[in-house]
Amino acid sequence: MIVVMKPGASKAQVQHVVDLVREYGLKDHVIYGTDRTVVACIGDKRMVDKGAIENAPMVERVMPILAPYKMASTEVKPTRTVIPIGPKKFAFGSQAIGVIAGPCAVENRDQLLRTAEAVSAAGAIGIRGGAYKPRTSPYSFQGLREEGLRILEDARDATGLAIATEAIGVEELGPVAEVADVVQIGARNMQHYPLLEAAGGCGKPVMLKRGPSAKLDEWLLAAEYVINGGNADVILCERGIRTFEEYTRNTLPLSVVPELRERTHLPILVDPSHGTGHAHLVPAMCRAAIAAGADGLLLEVHTDPEHALSDGAQSITPVTLMEMMTSLKRIASAVGRTM
Amino acid sequence: MIVVMKPGASKAQVQHVVDLVREYGLKDHVIYGTDRTVVACIGDKRMVDKGAIENAPMVERVMPILAPYKMASTEVKPTRTVIPIGPKKFAFGSQAIGVIAGPCAVENRDQLLRTAEAVSAAGAIGIRGGAYKPRTSPYSFQGLREEGLRILEDARDATGLAIATEAIGVEELGPVAEVADVVQIGARNMQHYPLLEAAGGCGKPVMLKRGPSAKLDEWLLAAEYVINGGNADVILCERGIRTFEEYTRNTLPLSVVPELRERTHLPILVDPSHGTGHAHLVPAMCRAAIAAGADGLLLEVHTDPEHALSDGAQSITPVTLMEMMTSLKRIASAVGRTM
Amino acid sequence: MIVVMKPGASKAQVQHVVDLVREYGLKDHVIYGTDRTVVACIGDKRMVDKGAIENAPMVERVMPILAPYKMASTEVKPTRTVIPIGPKKFAFGSQAIGVIAGPCAVENRDQLLRTAEAVSAAGAIGIRGGAYKPRTSPYSFQGLREEGLRILEDARDATGLAIATEAIGVEELGPVAEVADVVQIGARNMQHYPLLEAAGGCGKPVMLKRGPSAKLDEWLLAAEYVINGGNADVILCERGIRTFEEYTRNTLPLSVVPELRERTHLPILVDPSHGTGHAHLVPAMCRAAIAAGADGLLLEVHTDPEHALSDGAQSITPVTLMEMMTSLKRIASAVGRTM
Amino acid sequence: MIVVMKPGASKAQVQHVVDLVREYGLKDHVIYGTDRTVVACIGDKRMVDKGAIENAPMVERVMPILAPYKMASTEVKPTRTVIPIGPKKFAFGSQAIGVIAGPCAVENRDQLLRTAEAVSAAGAIGIRGGAYKPRTSPYSFQGLREEGLRILEDARDATGLAIATEAIGVEELGPVAEVADVVQIGARNMQHYPLLEAAGGCGKPVMLKRGPSAKLDEWLLAAEYVINGGNADVILCERGIRTFEEYTRNTLPLSVVPELRERTHLPILVDPSHGTGHAHLVPAMCRAAIAAGADGLLLEVHTDPEHALSDGAQSITPVTLMEMMTSLKRIASAVGRTM
Repeated sequence: MIVVMKPGASKAQVQHVVDLVREYGLKDHVIYGTDRTVVACIGDKRMVDKGAIENAPMVERVMPILAPYKMASTEVKPTRTVIPIGPKKFAFGSQAIGVIAGPCAVENRDQLLRTAEAVSAAGAIGIRGGAYKPRTSPYSFQGLREEGLRILEDARDATGLAIATEAIGVEELGPVAEVADVVQIGARNMQHYPLLEAAGGCGKPVMLKRGPSAKLDEWLLAAEYVINGGNADVILCERGIRTFEEYTRNTLPLSVVPELRERTHLPILVDPSHGTGHAHLVPAMCRAAIAAGADGLLLEVHTDPEHALSDGAQSITPVTLMEMMTSLKRIASAVGRTM
Repeated sequence: MIVVMKPGASKAQVQHVVDLVREYGLKDHVIYGTDRTVVACIGDKRMVDKGAIENAPMVERVMPILAPYKMASTEVKPTRTVIPIGPKKFAFGSQAIGVIAGPCAVENRDQLLRTAEAVSAAGAIGIRGGAYKPRTSPYSFQGLREEGLRILEDARDATGLAIATEAIGVEELGPVAEVADVVQIGARNMQHYPLLEAAGGCGKPVMLKRGPSAKLDEWLLAAEYVINGGNADVILCERGIRTFEEYTRNTLPLSVVPELRERTHLPILVDPSHGTGHAHLVPAMCRAAIAAGADGLLLEVHTDPEHALSDGAQSITPVTLMEMMTSLKRIASAVGRTM
Repeated sequence: MIVVMKPGASKAQVQHVVDLVREYGLKDHVIYGTDRTVVACIGDKRMVDKGAIENAPMVERVMPILAPYKMASTEVKPTRTVIPIGPKKFAFGSQAIGVIAGPCAVENRDQLLRTAEAVSAAGAIGIRGGAYKPRTSPYSFQGLREEGLRILEDARDATGLAIATEAIGVEELGPVAEVADVVQIGARNMQHYPLLEAAGGCGKPVMLKRGPSAKLDEWLLAAEYVINGGNADVILCERGIRTFEEYTRNTLPLSVVPELRERTHLPILVDPSHGTGHAHLVPAMCRAAIAAGADGLLLEVHTDPEHALSDGAQSITPVTLMEMMTSLKRIASAVGRTM
Repeated sequence: MIVVMKPGASKAQVQHVVDLVREYGLKDHVIYGTDRTVVACIGDKRMVDKGAIENAPMVERVMPILAPYKMASTEVKPTRTVIPIGPKKFAFGSQAIGVIAGPCAVENRDQLLRTAEAVSAAGAIGIRGGAYKPRTSPYSFQGLREEGLRILEDARDATGLAIATEAIGVEELGPVAEVADVVQIGARNMQHYPLLEAAGGCGKPVMLKRGPSAKLDEWLLAAEYVINGGNADVILCERGIRTFEEYTRNTLPLSVVPELRERTHLPILVDPSHGTGHAHLVPAMCRAAIAAGADGLLLEVHTDPEHALSDGAQSITPVTLMEMMTSLKRIASAVGRTM
């Protein structure tokens, strides 16, 4: 932590900061520059609230040096995390790239089973589908809930696909974790700490979506909650951030993929469906995500998007998925991966 | 809802959209323009998923006409909602402007009682303070929990101030709602639907903070969840949005205040502490918020910000609060309000 | 400048950075922490490209300590800059708050003269109006150019108002500076350096609008170009930034006002017309801007907004201006200013 | 254009809008819905200022239907534009993907010639390098100007590479256009209309960088200025947008590539150097850009980034470029292109 004093800070004011730093258990190191005095603070207490020191007289600002997360970091664990997923123990995070595809919501048994067969035939390793749906409006379809979980189980039985489905709250976590192979924590819940803590003890791999305005540190700290709770099997899922752009639902910042590969050992999934919001943009962004180094794709696929109960605009059809897979495999091969 | 066809859409493709629109229970109205055909859809089914229609062949885009919220809207209830708060039944949302002030977190009894007395002396009508704290890092101070609630009760007993404190999850809602005069739902939980639904039945006024990347429709739909759950006493709290600006913790968009006054009958609180993140910016933004028409202010006040366990940088002292109140009262008077 | 090494950086790699720092004429100061080594660099060479050092092996990042601007800073000139404007030498930046109002574009003589009389009667100290218009589309009205300047002169002759009008390029700067009392540099030109340099020698006060995605440092560096070119009379104008919000044309971040008052001695103008884009939001934001500490307001006023050739949606009428001035004066008085 | 009336608009108020619409030369079509009346306006006058109508009494909002650009649109010209570049007439916008690489600034003859040879050997088709530099600070290196242009000519003579270099203002356009094979208009000048108009007559292909906060319509309207000025050879260059993300200099939104391919016939270049700001992220984003469908890459390459006079942090070395080209070619092949 570096404390920058304002120009004109007196010796007493610098000493006051030094005292405060020591009180917080850190070692101080004062540097007198030509325009500014700075106090470098040494020690590994990552979580001293820098705001407290920032409020001392004549402090201009406080700059942290250390990343605030530990267990999610490659500094603590340099080897990449590989997570076995579903009945076939697909090695997520290995050289093999995994596609998890399916409808936004489980709408009925027939729809889901036909979709599961189609995405399985196309080469997906998992089926997605919300049984519990977090919906922006209280008047929208809220999901089949328990019944949706039963349908997902049937789809897994029929196809061998892993199930990825969302737990929208602490109360729903139990039933979801019992059935799911991957428990999804949605973007709007990325900082719902009771759920993150509970997910730490849920016994299943967790897919943690990035919040639409989360910085990387905040996202990795959310992962840290799950790991800290006892569950090291966390998959990060980038699904786009909110910017001024309006032709897409979100802006998909793919540079997150190479950046995360430096910072963390956790596998990285990309969701071009939410990342763009429009079916016609999905194939190009799937190709780009794999070229950028993603470990997998999360995709919304619907057999009849015109009648989808949610997210129709961003759902591709099984036919599009099938066509797309050919070029995806070639790109995977170009970056030394398999698919 | 207006469906815009792409140029070159055939008659059959337009008819297909017309059929889809009718299937969804809406009346269609086709307009052939010079460059585009558009299908205007008439009816009050606000929540047809526009994405479904957007996926039909040769549809360029679908533009909603109606706001997606109802009960929060001035169209449904043109009279302003006034909510009696705390032991003294302060009329929140009336001509009188209310200040709720206190520490980020309840740290100990002594700190809280001294702060409560100070903010009461300065003219506040409520004490804020987190008993349960949602913290970005699992290694940060997480709050005194049950004990914090007890301390808040003591502060209310001693001063007559209303208690505003946060429920961070469904499980914590019960104990919090029992004690609080205003139950806060935090920015990171704005779209945690199980909590919003539960808040609909909690029996206490709810203060709903805007999420850092929430659009106004999303925020008002979150309020709609609470109202739809049976609780009409919702206070909206603007606390800043995430933008590219880096000299503040958030960007405080005060134009939200006059805009919300047109759209909704719910009272509007502004939080310049989170809205700026720096104590030196708080007084000017308090003045601006009242000048813009806010019904109240939510403020972080700490008796010793250098030793605050959280949010030290944005906490003002009781002395600053006291000094600031004089100019705030003059501004309130300038816009025809009392304080 | 603080250079943070990656964990595991070798002694030779740290030494390489030390050598580089010395080569750039700075003094080095190496601090060995528990997790990181940092190299603090001492000296006043503000403009060493930090990127160069960031590219050295095992450097994690480089953090500047000093603000990159000098002459615009309160560190170099602590006294506030006051700029006499127009025939009546209005002291811009003093305790007196100045309103500059008028149409987006000069459309014809009659319109401008009537508007000038109306805003003068309402208490404005300047008339705004574009003779040269930067328009997003090549098919939009581009301004009356030379003829527009003549009309502005007539308006000044008739009313004694100062003229504020935009120079859209280096070639137009000469004729504009000859006529204008304040030469406006538009938001889209904030980083058009040839124009900034030329404005440094134009002999008239310059009003520099903030670009819609400019950080404060970039804006103050743009001002530095003008001052460095020999012209110390720069007025900064905040007109809103581009964010994800869509109910306004821009988001008006008023916390910029108190922040700039700490960083710079230059006067600060706020433009709620562009800052909101909608006439119904303008009065509240004018009140808020003055309460936040602005030195003046820039306003679009049109006698017939329904027939305005540009910016009709955000133009208020002279009647609205007149009504609003009463509350503005009371707010000015509440913050110890006159109007 | 669709005019949405507020609820409760009277017949006379609707009629007033109808009259206004007719006055602007459009045909009206009134639709009475259950909650709202809307006035659909038919005609091809794209540039009626919608703000004027928005200011009429009881108008809620005005929604445009038509894109505001014409000549840049695939509606007007469905065939893709292919632009021959440089001495070898590389067909930019064809199946072949072109790389333009070189230093941020031309620093001296030796540096540029060695870089040109290196990037030529790696397979680039053009050399980039600023002779005139737009710099955020007046104290930074401003470029070798005329001498820089001479050095670029020598590099072209030695290697056969096309020259891409920036014109920072109208005055510099003449000398730059004389030498350059591609005249770059920088991100900060994207809406400098005098320069766009002049570029319309400069006789050389123009590379138009997207402004960091430009929406797609604004960018395409900027291209429209150049085309409207007589120059149809415009290459669009995406270089990242400004968002809340802070680990990159900009956020590179690659979904722009497939979206632009639908909207416009102009070729699309991607600049991952500015799009990320950090050399370690550049190779992954080059791969992603080609996978997304880009027609070319613009890259900063420096033989000694630690001593670069600008943009050192984002410059890759010739060795990195060479290594990267192998995987790029495989990805190009995977999407049916050559390189």
